[in-house]
Amino acid sequence: MAAPGENLRINGDRLWDSLMEMAKIGPGVAGGNNRQTLTDADADGRALFQSWCEAEGCSMGLDQLGTMFARREGTDPDALPVYVGSHLDTQPTGGKYDGVLGVLGALEIVRTLNDLGIRTRHPIVVTNWTNEEGTRFAPAMLASGVFAGVHEQAWAEDRQDAEGKRFGDELDRIGWRGAEEVGARKMHAFFELHIEQGPILEAEGKDIGVVTHGQGLSWTQVTITGKEAHTGSTPMPLRRNAGLGMARVLEKVEEIALSHAPDAVGAAGHIDIYPNSRNVIPGKAVFTVDFRSPDLSVIEDMEKRLRDEGGKIAEEMGLGIEFEKVGGFDPVEFDETCVTAVRNAAERLGYSHRDLISGAGHDACWINRVAPTAMVMCPCVDGLSHNEAEEISREWATAGADVLMHAVVETAGIVE
Amino acid sequence: MAAPGENLRINGDRLWDSLMEMAKIGPGVAGGNNRQTLTDADADGRALFQSWCEAEGCSMGLDQLGTMFARREGTDPDALPVYVGSHLDTQPTGGKYDGVLGVLGALEIVRTLNDLGIRTRHPIVVTNWTNEEGTRFAPAMLASGVFAGVHEQAWAEDRQDAEGKRFGDELDRIGWRGAEEVGARKMHAFFELHIEQGPILEAEGKDIGVVTHGQGLSWTQVTITGKEAHTGSTPMPLRRNAGLGMARVLEKVEEIALSHAPDAVGAAGHIDIYPNSRNVIPGKAVFTVDFRSPDLSVIEDMEKRLRDEGGKIAEEMGLGIEFEKVGGFDPVEFDETCVTAVRNAAERLGYSHRDLISGAGHDACWINRVAPTAMVMCPCVDGLSHNEAEEISREWATAGADVLMHAVVETAGIVE
Repeated sequence: MAAPGENLRINGDRLWDSLMEMAKIGPGVAGGNNRQTLTDADADGRALFQSWCEAEGCSMGLDQLGTMFARREGTDPDALPVYVGSHLDTQPTGGKYDGVLGVLGALEIVRTLNDLGIRTRHPIVVTNWTNEEGTRFAPAMLASGVFAGVHEQAWAEDRQDAEGKRFGDELDRIGWRGAEEVGARKMHAFFELHIEQGPILEAEGKDIGVVTHGQGLSWTQVTITGKEAHTGSTPMPLRRNAGLGMARVLEKVEEIALSHAPDAVGAAGHIDIYPNSRNVIPGKAVFTVDFRSPDLSVIEDMEKRLRDEGGKIAEEMGLGIEFEKVGGFDPVEFDETCVTAVRNAAERLGYSHRDLISGAGHDACWINRVAPTAMVMCPCVDGLSHNEAEEISREWATAGADVLMHAVVETAGIVE
Repeated sequence: MAAPGENLRINGDRLWDSLMEMAKIGPGVAGGNNRQTLTDADADGRALFQSWCEAEGCSMGLDQLGTMFARREGTDPDALPVYVGSHLDTQPTGGKYDGVLGVLGALEIVRTLNDLGIRTRHPIVVTNWTNEEGTRFAPAMLASGVFAGVHEQAWAEDRQDAEGKRFGDELDRIGWRGAEEVGARKMHAFFELHIEQGPILEAEGKDIGVVTHGQGLSWTQVTITGKEAHTGSTPMPLRRNAGLGMARVLEKVEEIALSHAPDAVGAAGHIDIYPNSRNVIPGKAVFTVDFRSPDLSVIEDMEKRLRDEGGKIAEEMGLGIEFEKVGGFDPVEFDETCVTAVRNAAERLGYSHRDLISGAGHDACWINRVAPTAMVMCPCVDGLSHNEAEEISREWATAGADVLMHAVVETAGIVE
């Protein structure tokens, strides 16, 4: 048993062709994809993926939430499998690579090993997690969350889409519910390849991101209450302008995030003003502050300062202010051995790389709770994702899948 | 011919009863009124007003835009009439007093003069301007604007409501189009009584506002363009946050307005953020800055500073910024003789008073262009208007109508 040599490479053209073939299922309106979870298109995508896995001699497992596990046997019947994958579902206006690259890159590992007749001690299981996106049935990363014990399965099945359809019913309808208990599988390790969904790798000209942490997230909804009044007939000293109060809190959010540079970030993407009329001073502003950091103590400090300093701003202006935590998850520290395997793989293959903190959530962030886990990232054009214009190059995809393969095969152990 | 003595007073209970009677027509859902222009309720309100005018022996004139002119004759056949009035139409969720007090307060003058057998040299014409509110057919003060030559009549008749109905067609439908050419009437003077729609009089415990100016208005729509990006995976230095740029411009708007204290004001009541999603850094912010001042040069300075200093803010942040002037009117300086008549009337009657700048637009602001004009204001509770909870006291209404009567009668000249 040994690590693979640097000449072991995936077939980049075959990977790219598979990406393009999968993208024909559930096409979007602007060159991307709309293959939302548990739709007919999702079922078609699953069937295509299954046919490819079976052609490679894999057996397909399916759990009660529809997550697919395509197994390539190892030589040691007692060795736990190395899992590798991501998700095939997309945003309603999604791209061709977000999630898909991670599943088909994993499949390409199996194809390459089969081509070369390479055997591993641990089995390798290519995984397609159900409902990573969470746009049809919130929250995101639903099946991996149940797998990792974060959510109850019954609760997950009760999630409803905008038309009131239940997750469990739609899973039955498309015919992809399995018998296997969710979370029963034990993993030797889990690896996930994903596009960065951010601008760092492209900006720095790096081929590979070695993901060491997942950022923790805190969402605080802030409601500032002033007094609706006519913009013309209310003198400045008598105004209680909730919009101006919001502006000052937004400036404070920037200041707080920058005080924890370079890893912490903060912004408000959601802002609603009431009554939102040109000639009425805003009586109410509701906005959500998004703070992220790989360090839990930093997140807690940012939350506290938002409440303390936001409260002071409101008090000075005669405004009311309320804070409600509406979402969050703790930072993730990926497994050191798995991360090292990824970094070594990039090094061995001669790809430029840097350590990276994942700003977005991924199935790997939940699975890290129940198995040693790491992620590989490749650049995407302009940091763009969740958008039909999402784009990557064939070279980036190839490099990402090469590194993924080397990390997986080193962990699974080549049998000489 | 002489000014009235201080013992000449309107009948406050009769005025209040008429206000309450009119408020039964087009009731709102929360104690106020929905009697929007050219609706069936507007027609009913007009009919009630006409019946009251005719009961007082007035003749009713009606122009081609539906403005009503109820005339009480004077003794001098060559003397131009003194016009007095406001509007009976309301906001969709309007109060019982905004506009209505000015029309029924004017009617109360006629009733009082008739009770006492007082004759004036100039005729007195109680006026109900069509479509002051502009909520159904924008813009506001439409008929008085045509009367004063600000708008073309054909353009006014082509204004459409949200259902695509034309102003001219709806005027015909409710049967209140007259034959008289709009703006043909010549006025000796025009007076308008209105609730303040602001908090100053109540806060200072004054009975009467002597309106010396109407504030000029400038609406600049600002569009800031940044870049939509994931709130998690985009490092702070790589962000181009249009929402933060907006926050800094809003702070600048406050600073600019305060630099012209105490009369200038500035705020943004309308704010839209795109795509307005919790985990997307705003790529675009669109908001409207409302600057007002009684001094045209101040308005021009504020507009210029917004463009210059807003442009600098955007440039420093790598944001795009565009400015579009989407509305405005010049400040109004009311006629000195008419204003003095109002001030003298308050003094003579022993009501506490202060000079006031009207922050909102009124029919009087347009009529001031074609006739000597002034306004009387009375307090309203908490500065609230354009709201069904709009409230005034019987005493405030009485004081306002008393001062209106004295100013009108002094200007029309009592015939001994």
